[in-house]
Amino acid sequence: MSIQTLVEKINATGNPTVVGLDARLEYLPDYLSADIRREGRISLEGAAQALRRFNYDLIDALHDIVPAIKPQSAYYELLGPAGIQTLASTISYAQAKGMYVIADIKRGDIGATASAYAEAYLGYTQVWGETLPVFGCDAVTVNPYLGTDGVEPFLKECRAHQKSIFVLVKTSNPSSGEFQNRDLEGQPLYARVAEKIAEWGQGLDTACGYNQVGAVVGATYPQEQKIVRRLLPHAYFLVPGYGAQGATAQDIAGAFNDDGLGAIVNSSRAIMCAWKKTGKDGLDYQEAARAEAIRMRDDIVAAIR
Amino acid sequence: MSIQTLVEKINATGNPTVVGLDARLEYLPDYLSADIRREGRISLEGAAQALRRFNYDLIDALHDIVPAIKPQSAYYELLGPAGIQTLASTISYAQAKGMYVIADIKRGDIGATASAYAEAYLGYTQVWGETLPVFGCDAVTVNPYLGTDGVEPFLKECRAHQKSIFVLVKTSNPSSGEFQNRDLEGQPLYARVAEKIAEWGQGLDTACGYNQVGAVVGATYPQEQKIVRRLLPHAYFLVPGYGAQGATAQDIAGAFNDDGLGAIVNSSRAIMCAWKKTGKDGLDYQEAARAEAIRMRDDIVAAIR
Repeated sequence: MSIQTLVEKINATGNPTVVGLDARLEYLPDYLSADIRREGRISLEGAAQALRRFNYDLIDALHDIVPAIKPQSAYYELLGPAGIQTLASTISYAQAKGMYVIADIKRGDIGATASAYAEAYLGYTQVWGETLPVFGCDAVTVNPYLGTDGVEPFLKECRAHQKSIFVLVKTSNPSSGEFQNRDLEGQPLYARVAEKIAEWGQGLDTACGYNQVGAVVGATYPQEQKIVRRLLPHAYFLVPGYGAQGATAQDIAGAFNDDGLGAIVNSSRAIMCAWKKTGKDGLDYQEAARAEAIRMRDDIVAAIR
Repeated sequence: MSIQTLVEKINATGNPTVVGLDARLEYLPDYLSADIRREGRISLEGAAQALRRFNYDLIDALHDIVPAIKPQSAYYELLGPAGIQTLASTISYAQAKGMYVIADIKRGDIGATASAYAEAYLGYTQVWGETLPVFGCDAVTVNPYLGTDGVEPFLKECRAHQKSIFVLVKTSNPSSGEFQNRDLEGQPLYARVAEKIAEWGQGLDTACGYNQVGAVVGATYPQEQKIVRRLLPHAYFLVPGYGAQGATAQDIAGAFNDDGLGAIVNSSRAIMCAWKKTGKDGLDYQEAARAEAIRMRDDIVAAIR
């Protein structure tokens, strides 16, 4: 599914947000894992099974009002092979429910290795003459530090299979400026990366006006967001940092274009842990997640109008 | 195992090299997968099983003369959950044979996420009050683009469990200079990253004179290697690019200190595919890998003397 499909889903739901599925056991209501713990399956496999159910239930609760999920690979890797199985299952389940899937993997490597990553997450594996799907995501996040030949294999998959990537430009964390904001021959490093994104996107425009090559731009840096918006008018922005990391809807308004499009805002903890604020011991985690997703949607849509 | 353990293994074998286990089906002699293909298991699981056997056989052939392995995560991810199982098994098998394991994952993310990666590969997962191992590597590679708070969680595991990291400084690929060699306020970006590595290593010195925080410096850039060597006299260098990527033993001599230590040189394809050059249809892949590992060792040791 191309970035155009994401735009269509955003338009259909009237919701420019993505739910970050950070598979953390501390986000799970206790009673959801009670059976597994009673059976003594306090293991990576037991944890991965509990989190798969939680993910499926959240997808069930959100798929008609939220256009996309963003699973964060790290939390699945933290549960070993069983965690990766839950990641793969979650991707398939969300897609079957019509959601767009952005795997937050932040990979970046030399050409041959980047090809393996790109094929794993966006393309196919060749096994003894057969072409097999692996994770089959719609988009991934990519780290630019290695330059063009670390990104080109992802572009190849974008061209072949109508996929998208979001390249790290200005990340949401407190120390992101240590390198990203320093002056690289007359412009901050993050702006130099944005320049490259414009190059990398050549030939990858879509009919909706947006390019398959997008940018990660943290909600926590509204000034940089406006600058990158000007540099890359046709790039979709994946915007982390809203809510738990402290950014408000006003802070992210500058990530959007005048058409009300151009950015998709992530929230993970606030949605996954919405049940912790209702005083019902997690019995309402689906309803609570849905209510928070609607609140977030309305908050952001009001700010960008 | 700390960087000191790696140095001890390098001294014991007289071999400053690491075999890169890039789990690629095209590196496997045909006959090794014949049973699996005959059974019709042309699947990610079948491929992962064949590659696990190949890895084990290579470790059997090399563990007494090569101090370390460097599995490249991308090739395991390309086989989905079954591939990750092969990665985990390979790590355990190599460690049981006394080898030091550097997982080449090149991860970098915001603090909370970087903690999950650091715990997965160097530390432990907390599951319902129990502390469980996951991949249990000795070292990993880390991407610096997010700055200190993306690296700090890895340093925490280094401090807690005597582990090491190798931070990307100057990568071996052709386009690495696009960002890494441009001037960042008076120094190339790669040198600025090296400066940060000196900070990040504070308190992580070991008795052997080397620090737990090392650097990835490509063999293909001898000039930059010498500069980083001067900037970071106590950092161990992980040096990719020898052999298949075109760098010679002379090119990497500058990565070493006068004590003959300070760098570990990677070779993947030349060792894994050594059997392709002997005309024996792969029947000798263990002997061929061992012969190539010895040739490489002697080539490099002669150049750094």
